[in-house]
Amino acid sequence: MKTYGSKNIETLKQLIEEKDFIPNLSVDCTIFGFHDNILKVLLLKYHDLDMWSLPGGFVFVDEDLREAADRVLYERTHLKGLFLEQFHTFGRLDRTINNVHKTLINNKGLDVPKDHWILQRFITVGYCSLIDFSLANTFPDAFNETCAWFEVSKIPKMAFDHDRIIADGHEYLRKNIDTQVAASNLLPEKFTMKDLQSLYETILGEKFRRNNFQRKILSMNSLERLEKLYDGSANKAPFLYKFIKE
Amino acid sequence: MKTYGSKNIETLKQLIEEKDFIPNLSVDCTIFGFHDNILKVLLLKYHDLDMWSLPGGFVFVDEDLREAADRVLYERTHLKGLFLEQFHTFGRLDRTINNVHKTLINNKGLDVPKDHWILQRFITVGYCSLIDFSLANTFPDAFNETCAWFEVSKIPKMAFDHDRIIADGHEYLRKNIDTQVAASNLLPEKFTMKDLQSLYETILGEKFRRNNFQRKILSMNSLERLEKLYDGSANKAPFLYKFIKE
Repeated sequence: MKTYGSKNIETLKQLIEEKDFIPNLSVDCTIFGFHDNILKVLLLKYHDLDMWSLPGGFVFVDEDLREAADRVLYERTHLKGLFLEQFHTFGRLDRTINNVHKTLINNKGLDVPKDHWILQRFITVGYCSLIDFSLANTFPDAFNETCAWFEVSKIPKMAFDHDRIIADGHEYLRKNIDTQVAASNLLPEKFTMKDLQSLYETILGEKFRRNNFQRKILSMNSLERLEKLYDGSANKAPFLYKFIKE
Repeated sequence: MKTYGSKNIETLKQLIEEKDFIPNLSVDCTIFGFHDNILKVLLLKYHDLDMWSLPGGFVFVDEDLREAADRVLYERTHLKGLFLEQFHTFGRLDRTINNVHKTLINNKGLDVPKDHWILQRFITVGYCSLIDFSLANTFPDAFNETCAWFEVSKIPKMAFDHDRIIADGHEYLRKNIDTQVAASNLLPEKFTMKDLQSLYETILGEKFRRNNFQRKILSMNSLERLEKLYDGSANKAPFLYKFIKE
């Protein structure tokens, strides 16, 4: 499998010379990271430009769309088997009208013909994932000099329509929080109701009353109640729970 | 705006000669129709083949993805301004491996080079709409000889992965029933709780207890209660409701 992972100029040259991508189509991933009750999103900074973008890439002609998304996620995090869900395809004609790619290529002293595929309009398929950002290393691609995690409320200046893609990805995560949390391995195998509530509150950006939260979560029948967590103060020991695997 | 709407061979020739489509990309619409408590989906039968497909089409290079979906829906129903939602993009490498297009073209005595865009792999973006099928006329496209409404439980032999797209579209409709029903104009402006319940039961394929249904629907605060519907038997007159427009 070819990858486009390192950040030197040779990689950019190789990318430009690639002829095996589907034209006009890309994938972009909103990779949300949760740790210590903060929700962040993984962004990449372009070389020599004060502008950031989502981890994204192109689709090989002999590759499933989904494989392309998995590959991009792997290239940026070196993590495999992550739970990644498609949420929306962004296809406005004007979404790539300010062609950042041309500036980036020219800034490196390279050039491409006007009708080169990389300067064309792109329709992009958005994917969403939720991981523990303290576990993932991050690796920039050919266009970028660095990766960083940003709090979702403090997004820097984004290329193309990537700010809208982040907003839609976050909305998707909120709407599908039950599935995403159960699949994300963000919690240890056994956790307390308080741990789970903190995770939900951070992602949804709102506080819940303890009893209401517990009633709602238990009504979904996705949790198994285990033994109590004894930590010395036995009277108040909370129950532990785990997700029921389907 | 160019359209590809009629079913004669000239239209097929024009389609083949078209050079202004984005390669490898299509749109497909699951147009669900509701009338008299039956849920159907609009399908097209190919010329000279015992095989059906969803209303679909290609995306012009100078057209928003969404415009393409609206155009396809318009070409097949001649209805404008319908509520149409994107639900998933289907991108498996093998989804168009049995190239129906080649057979159709050859059956008409036409031919295209092996590397012609119409014989390539297609990634397709799925859209979903819910309309009153008694109101819509239907119009076949260049590849098809007829349109027909099928009950969702009685789908004929479908091309490509269109049976999966129908299943996913139906699942999307069920999950988003509140939004879709409110936007669909399937009910008259004023309706009874019983009318609304019948519509929900048909789409979801399950029966509800009257009180449970009423409580759940009213808790969404999307309905305004109006006067009673007097039909002579005044004692049992039910209330009328209407959707609150946002």
